[in-house]
Amino acid sequence: MIKVGIVGGTGYTGVELLRLLAVHPDVELTAITSRKEDGLPVADMFPSLRGRVNLKFSSPDNADLTKCDVVFFATPHGVAMAQAPALLKAGVKVIDLAADFRIQEKAVFEKWYKIEHTCPDLLEHAAYGLAELNREDIKKANLVANPGCYPTTMQLGYYPLLKNGLVDAGSLIADCKSGVSGAGRKAEIGTLFSESSDNFKAYGVAGHRHTPETSAQLQRFTSDKVSLIFTPHLVPMIRGMHSTLYARLTKDISNEDLQKLFEDQYKDSAFVDVMPFGSHPETRSTRGSNMLRLALHRPDNGNTVIVLVVQDNLVKGASGQAVQCMNLMFGLEETTGLMQIALLP
Amino acid sequence: MIKVGIVGGTGYTGVELLRLLAVHPDVELTAITSRKEDGLPVADMFPSLRGRVNLKFSSPDNADLTKCDVVFFATPHGVAMAQAPALLKAGVKVIDLAADFRIQEKAVFEKWYKIEHTCPDLLEHAAYGLAELNREDIKKANLVANPGCYPTTMQLGYYPLLKNGLVDAGSLIADCKSGVSGAGRKAEIGTLFSESSDNFKAYGVAGHRHTPETSAQLQRFTSDKVSLIFTPHLVPMIRGMHSTLYARLTKDISNEDLQKLFEDQYKDSAFVDVMPFGSHPETRSTRGSNMLRLALHRPDNGNTVIVLVVQDNLVKGASGQAVQCMNLMFGLEETTGLMQIALLP
Amino acid sequence: MIKVGIVGGTGYTGVELLRLLAVHPDVELTAITSRKEDGLPVADMFPSLRGRVNLKFSSPDNADLTKCDVVFFATPHGVAMAQAPALLKAGVKVIDLAADFRIQEKAVFEKWYKIEHTCPDLLEHAAYGLAELNREDIKKANLVANPGCYPTTMQLGYYPLLKNGLVDAGSLIADCKSGVSGAGRKAEIGTLFSESSDNFKAYGVAGHRHTPETSAQLQRFTSDKVSLIFTPHLVPMIRGMHSTLYARLTKDISNEDLQKLFEDQYKDSAFVDVMPFGSHPETRSTRGSNMLRLALHRPDNGNTVIVLVVQDNLVKGASGQAVQCMNLMFGLEETTGLMQIALLP
Amino acid sequence: MIKVGIVGGTGYTGVELLRLLAVHPDVELTAITSRKEDGLPVADMFPSLRGRVNLKFSSPDNADLTKCDVVFFATPHGVAMAQAPALLKAGVKVIDLAADFRIQEKAVFEKWYKIEHTCPDLLEHAAYGLAELNREDIKKANLVANPGCYPTTMQLGYYPLLKNGLVDAGSLIADCKSGVSGAGRKAEIGTLFSESSDNFKAYGVAGHRHTPETSAQLQRFTSDKVSLIFTPHLVPMIRGMHSTLYARLTKDISNEDLQKLFEDQYKDSAFVDVMPFGSHPETRSTRGSNMLRLALHRPDNGNTVIVLVVQDNLVKGASGQAVQCMNLMFGLEETTGLMQIALLP
Repeated sequence: MIKVGIVGGTGYTGVELLRLLAVHPDVELTAITSRKEDGLPVADMFPSLRGRVNLKFSSPDNADLTKCDVVFFATPHGVAMAQAPALLKAGVKVIDLAADFRIQEKAVFEKWYKIEHTCPDLLEHAAYGLAELNREDIKKANLVANPGCYPTTMQLGYYPLLKNGLVDAGSLIADCKSGVSGAGRKAEIGTLFSESSDNFKAYGVAGHRHTPETSAQLQRFTSDKVSLIFTPHLVPMIRGMHSTLYARLTKDISNEDLQKLFEDQYKDSAFVDVMPFGSHPETRSTRGSNMLRLALHRPDNGNTVIVLVVQDNLVKGASGQAVQCMNLMFGLEETTGLMQIALLP
Repeated sequence: MIKVGIVGGTGYTGVELLRLLAVHPDVELTAITSRKEDGLPVADMFPSLRGRVNLKFSSPDNADLTKCDVVFFATPHGVAMAQAPALLKAGVKVIDLAADFRIQEKAVFEKWYKIEHTCPDLLEHAAYGLAELNREDIKKANLVANPGCYPTTMQLGYYPLLKNGLVDAGSLIADCKSGVSGAGRKAEIGTLFSESSDNFKAYGVAGHRHTPETSAQLQRFTSDKVSLIFTPHLVPMIRGMHSTLYARLTKDISNEDLQKLFEDQYKDSAFVDVMPFGSHPETRSTRGSNMLRLALHRPDNGNTVIVLVVQDNLVKGASGQAVQCMNLMFGLEETTGLMQIALLP
Repeated sequence: MIKVGIVGGTGYTGVELLRLLAVHPDVELTAITSRKEDGLPVADMFPSLRGRVNLKFSSPDNADLTKCDVVFFATPHGVAMAQAPALLKAGVKVIDLAADFRIQEKAVFEKWYKIEHTCPDLLEHAAYGLAELNREDIKKANLVANPGCYPTTMQLGYYPLLKNGLVDAGSLIADCKSGVSGAGRKAEIGTLFSESSDNFKAYGVAGHRHTPETSAQLQRFTSDKVSLIFTPHLVPMIRGMHSTLYARLTKDISNEDLQKLFEDQYKDSAFVDVMPFGSHPETRSTRGSNMLRLALHRPDNGNTVIVLVVQDNLVKGASGQAVQCMNLMFGLEETTGLMQIALLP
Repeated sequence: MIKVGIVGGTGYTGVELLRLLAVHPDVELTAITSRKEDGLPVADMFPSLRGRVNLKFSSPDNADLTKCDVVFFATPHGVAMAQAPALLKAGVKVIDLAADFRIQEKAVFEKWYKIEHTCPDLLEHAAYGLAELNREDIKKANLVANPGCYPTTMQLGYYPLLKNGLVDAGSLIADCKSGVSGAGRKAEIGTLFSESSDNFKAYGVAGHRHTPETSAQLQRFTSDKVSLIFTPHLVPMIRGMHSTLYARLTKDISNEDLQKLFEDQYKDSAFVDVMPFGSHPETRSTRGSNMLRLALHRPDNGNTVIVLVVQDNLVKGASGQAVQCMNLMFGLEETTGLMQIALLP
């Protein structure tokens, strides 16, 4: 059994990790920390876990995470970089669900996250945890940077197009929509029910932290200069993410060949479902599951290709993806403990 | 024109007052205070008011509210009692949307609200602002205690039954449901979209502050001892309140006579709609309007009568009711500025 | 492996059965029928099942359900009674999720459901599928009547009180609230998003089909005459049911003893969670899981006891409960395939 | 008083017309037709109108609409073209909220709407009812084609850019999102609460009827060839529309000048609110009001300009816009009866 520790279990990615790991056949939940909730049974905060998770939150000062085989950081940015070096030294694997190790360039990280990076030497050792595009690196890694939710959809949607040189990398437009849980479990007016229900808006159009992460990864797929317009929006739903990806075709290709390209690319990826050409994937078809579904469109058979991508932002967009990485890091079947079927309706 | 001041305009009852008063034909909005938002244009916080309300928030220290004819307190409990005495002395009428003057007994108030009442002498001069049952008092009042949202539905629903001695006052059960805006515009985890959407729960079953207010008012309608079980619940909708009121009939009465009793009681009340016997009122039929609708039921023609009552908690349950009081206090037609039709769908 | 057939798989209880049975370790999904969708892959209708359920709908005329070990009827009332006799004769076990076999008295059934009962002789052989109260009968049964969703909450909430003679059976009031999925997957205006979102209402107050079912079952727990007022309401959420049960205590009992009574009653029931006295269970704590949670309240320590009960109406209130019965009928562990943790948030 | 008739008052645009016209100071509601609901009081179907609209639905066979000064068609496509010729001949003005007269080219209309146009000669006499861009035509018209909801946002958003030759007309991308009420009050599975709540999806990506309408109108603003990619999505909210409009700048222009261009264009349009550069308009800021709000963005000061546009699809996107046209056609102030402030929260 893999001994698992979780740092920062009071947020949505934390409780989602617990939901997944509590039924994972190869995992033993060992410790979960929260300075603020020290001593509180986890199930008192999240009654969905009553009878299933008997751990109590423990103060980071008391928890000996070095006894774990792997520690997940479900924390705000900056926490993992402070604790990861010691854990790694002690032989504990680390999976960070925040951004600390997602961006390879220290300066870019610091510009967008407004904090100093305290262990930049680890950046090159961190594997980027998008298994579908980086499986071998993850298997060998001791430190994994779990991708952001938006970047996951954009990378898996654009990858086959960029890698095969089919589209103009310089005019990508990603119009993305997220459920409210993406904003986390924080007391804020903007995400109150009365503020965000029965409402729709864009946010962060002037600059969102997922832009540099995505741009840097997309750039790895092509030698052309990538230019990405990324517009996030807030949808009045709890879970779910829908990315509408636009790209301009620069080569002559039939719809059948386009479709085949995507199907071939992801034929061995259990968690990417390439739907029939012209489908309209719904976010609810992934609710609570680790599946990402996508479908291709080509209006009027013109030179614009649209990729519609959906996922559950808390599963494939966060905690499920992290468990997928853990499976790879420990030599397990990639799908272990992740075969929940989406909750529909 | 009535010069109106609002203390505490950054909450939901505040913005709702602004929506109603901005189009009230006899009102001139004069001042709106907020210590925290001093100098901010109101419409920057509430874009629905862009081009319609040009006021800025001003610090309570700078605003001279004594120039107003009436001041509304859309504040947490305790603020009105601190400022009302000076305003009243200066000849300004006061309408408090909080609880400071709702409960006549100082000790009861202090028990439930955990603060000392600093002007108990004013309690007997405050009119309870439920126009349908207390119209004449309000007309003469300089100080009005606007009723709570739940109490409004319970009083208007139970009144004809208690006043006419038809039911057992000692076994009233009010199972009530409120939209989330009733919790106010406060940064709290419990009312986040991700916490309260797609969810339903009871709260405060052990004791809610609206119980003593309601019980005291109901007791005025009957010489029998009133005993009320009041169970509030939270509904995943922004606005709306639905009270399901149960009472045991102690007298023989036909359904027709029951219905007539209610119709007669409210035939001159523009804002109470007695629907046909056996109707199922929907909260949305009052959304954004000052209407309260109710309907009677009697399962199996037995000895239980059920009164279903709906209203918009922010209008008839708060700000609309306050404007209704203002109209009466200034000798205007009770319905002035309050004839908005509900938004459906 | 148990060969399972499903009649009527295009509704919400049908797709929920598929979600549960597709991952059940002892089940082989064998046939699913729909006259209208003959030939359509199930996953085309419910994309959540893509890659997980490869069955196609087949016409009832072609499907040979006699090859199954058990057949679930996820159909409108009246279908199971037409097909069950032949299946039972062929040695196939039958679990009906509709009402055909829930009410023992033919006349009562026909009065409420407005159809003739065509196999009344089977009524006495049908086990009522509420495992917590009827486990042994279910184990031996070939025909199970799966309880209605509302009745499940009312029975499990009232049972310990009635069985122990603690409350007045003649004045029970059940104020119940259901998510919209309880109305089924039918094209109707009343349950459109634009009609039922941001809205709350009671319905069927004059008489709901779950009243006679519940009253008859409750009557089995006590020799006193049961009288039940049952008021259903519609909540703008997809899944979830919350019953607020009121009863008048007729015996002197401490809150501690009340609590102990419930805990003892359900200590061996894996799917009933008795929460600490005074808790407020939330429907979302059961979303997608087979758990039912309940909590006791006693306002002002008076003579009214309130039981708050929550469940997922499609799982413990329907399809999960049906699988629980199947497990018992086939000698499996009762919890097999039903240990999903609720999806929160 | 203007005598108003409404054909087809049982849908959402119908009830919204009633909400607006019932309080319009210059209107007398005269007739409302529905073949199916003949004789039913309108307020029985829409309880929000109880006490405010006393009309009954009358059969089209009995209603003499020629007594009206103006008739609104809130009907499916095809109805207005059948009845408008006779009404116009009788001197009655006609405003069609459906598409019958929106598209000038008969062949294009018939291709997209799959019905024959039975009065193509009227097409050239129909004014396109977008007052902000076509005010003088509407004033003189007897027949007005009220614009589609999506086209309203796209035209008002792109107009200043195209008219001034600032952007590449050949690469417009409009990523649009609508609340569910846009699908109308029709019994359909896809728009059930349980299907569309807590969900997000694109639809009609391969071709939506609003594309030819919008393209034809946009083409009027520029001599360059317009090419528009239009992607509609469904948002789990009742009302509201958000269009995210992308265009490529072809001229050098500062953000200040861009902003000024829009402000100048709409400075005399009471219902278009140009928000400060970089704002994120929210749909709820227009809920129930006739306002359309927009804001400009320019990521990284590059050559992509984004226009964010919001409106209430049932008001500025349908019934409010139709009343705005009526005001112009009858020489009233354009804003008469349309100054409702949005309902927030």
